[in-house]
Amino acid sequence: MQRFEDIVIGARQQLGAYTFTADNIKAFARKYDPQAFHLDEEAGRRSLFGALAASGWHTTSAWMKTAVEYGQRDAGSAITVGGASPGFKNLKWPKPVLAGDTVTYFTEVVSKRESVTRPAWGLVFVLNTGLNQRGELVLSFDGSAFVPRRRAPR
Amino acid sequence: MQRFEDIVIGARQQLGAYTFTADNIKAFARKYDPQAFHLDEEAGRRSLFGALAASGWHTTSAWMKTAVEYGQRDAGSAITVGGASPGFKNLKWPKPVLAGDTVTYFTEVVSKRESVTRPAWGLVFVLNTGLNQRGELVLSFDGSAFVPRRRAPR
Repeated sequence: MQRFEDIVIGARQQLGAYTFTADNIKAFARKYDPQAFHLDEEAGRRSLFGALAASGWHTTSAWMKTAVEYGQRDAGSAITVGGASPGFKNLKWPKPVLAGDTVTYFTEVVSKRESVTRPAWGLVFVLNTGLNQRGELVLSFDGSAFVPRRRAPR
Repeated sequence: MQRFEDIVIGARQQLGAYTFTADNIKAFARKYDPQAFHLDEEAGRRSLFGALAASGWHTTSAWMKTAVEYGQRDAGSAITVGGASPGFKNLKWPKPVLAGDTVTYFTEVVSKRESVTRPAWGLVFVLNTGLNQRGELVLSFDGSAFVPRRRAPR
């Protein structure tokens, strides 16, 4: 398992990719975001998105899927997988995700510090992002995670 | 449609409720958050949650579902339904949501101001929350939305 001391500021992990199809966009929307531009191609074309568009929560949930599967493949890099995450900040969907788009997800270490309240742990701050097949940013949000220190302070 | 001038600071809308079952918790997790404590009762019992627990993204997506359906029932109150939301801030899951829990979702107007860049619009800031059947906070996040003004400034 990766320890706090091993985590390098600026390190960026490519978690994986997810392709948004008309089918999975509509299936998510039916259950969790039943707005017309997420459910129907024609309504999407007439909307400000210009095409069938994925729910922002679908885009975010697909980030979680790639993060969890990445952590399961590579147990040493579990810092992004917030099993019991307290939450996230600054969730942004700067561009729509449309049917046919493939989004590649990343996590990047922004900063870290020792925990004041839990001396055996450090706190790591990450920027989580998704880029579409044209390299355009479609998702970003800030996360943080507790990571165990190699040695407790004296 | 509700206009900027009509929006009252402190107004709180009850959007609706969503019951988390073992089946819908596992169905969400299989697609978007395949961690053992979201997929299997026994793994949930052995986890820090103590029981089969919903993904935080499932808790959030169910907020969206109730918000959209509320907006569809009551077109005058569509301010919370971020059809093209730019994003959210300070997403928190302060307590786990377990199989059998029913979460009631709310949105509350925190503040509002006229838009500087878009004079025909105002900006409304809301606090979105979810409370379980014991009244415990399980979800909170901050949102904002553009709302048309009744009359453009002279």
